[in-house]
Amino acid sequence: MKEIVFNQTPLYRFLQLCNEEDNQNSRKILDCGAGGSKPPLSMFYNHGYETTGIDLDINQVEKADEFGHSNNQNLGIRLGDMTKLDFTDETFGFVYSYNSIFHMKKSEIEKSIIEMKRVLKPNGLMFVNFLSIDDFRCGEGPHLGENQYEQMDDDPVIHSYFEYNEAEKYFSDMKFVLKERRIIERIYEGERIRQGFIDYILRK
Amino acid sequence: MKEIVFNQTPLYRFLQLCNEEDNQNSRKILDCGAGGSKPPLSMFYNHGYETTGIDLDINQVEKADEFGHSNNQNLGIRLGDMTKLDFTDETFGFVYSYNSIFHMKKSEIEKSIIEMKRVLKPNGLMFVNFLSIDDFRCGEGPHLGENQYEQMDDDPVIHSYFEYNEAEKYFSDMKFVLKERRIIERIYEGERIRQGFIDYILRK
Repeated sequence: MKEIVFNQTPLYRFLQLCNEEDNQNSRKILDCGAGGSKPPLSMFYNHGYETTGIDLDINQVEKADEFGHSNNQNLGIRLGDMTKLDFTDETFGFVYSYNSIFHMKKSEIEKSIIEMKRVLKPNGLMFVNFLSIDDFRCGEGPHLGENQYEQMDDDPVIHSYFEYNEAEKYFSDMKFVLKERRIIERIYEGERIRQGFIDYILRK
Repeated sequence: MKEIVFNQTPLYRFLQLCNEEDNQNSRKILDCGAGGSKPPLSMFYNHGYETTGIDLDINQVEKADEFGHSNNQNLGIRLGDMTKLDFTDETFGFVYSYNSIFHMKKSEIEKSIIEMKRVLKPNGLMFVNFLSIDDFRCGEGPHLGENQYEQMDDDPVIHSYFEYNEAEKYFSDMKFVLKERRIIERIYEGERIRQGFIDYILRK
């Protein structure tokens, strides 16, 4: 089978760092916001991880199921709410959330990060990323709080945008591994648009 | 065989864009600065590309050869100078240079980009990236010109750093596809360091 190239390129580096960890650590990994037609948990499944994923949207869970069936992979993706994770403390050696957490208000984002840290084993690795105020859509739509807006994708959706150092406060009890600020310019529907992200990798 | 995870994560997106091109386009790809112990041309080889690579450093070519033997891949990596490419015009459907071109003075960088464009077929895709002035080492070492320095890695090496829009001038005759500014903070020898890159994807 030809390797699938996943869209979530920053997760390749996270996978590489996870692979470099001692085997003593649990190979159990959790994805918060795991659904969709090309679920990145498959990257980890291919490398021998025991995968679990949750998603708030049943349509995204179904798309991930279809991918799992087509590729003969049981990725363990099901309905779930990342602000209230249905797992006991220190269940996973690895926890991540990619392009998901910013679809909530900042008060819920904080809850979710507390939950992700709770289910992570001591010394475990975590990846989470944020939209940044560099993004061209920051400021658009009804205002829900500081850099938080209701915007239209296919349906109305919340987007929360972060200043460069704003998310540091969530991780003061963790060890810093990596932070990447990415400003992407690309062509979308004929226009040059600008997207902004801030990715973190941390150790509990 | 378990998939190798390559360090050059931005090339996963380039690979994905290359894979989306029509098959009418040549599947021949050139890497300028292709050597080393985990050559990214292998990503493209795995996806059926006919690969060619050049590197100025014989040690890097030998490391790539060892990788090729171990993995039973003939990547076609050999000695070569990217300021004077030894290929006829419009040879390749895809050309890239990753974390390489900035190891030269800006006058040579310009020559190299002209060469990369020359050997690229019309409508072909090109990836090239630059160090940015966001990098923590910008300003260090003997000054060789505007944001160009001789710095020490294992051996003395030239590093040229670019302002955010400085490289646009090289691509005025190409179609813009994508630009990414990346500022990475990570731990290196116990210190939190900051690296800066600007990646481009363009169409001839």
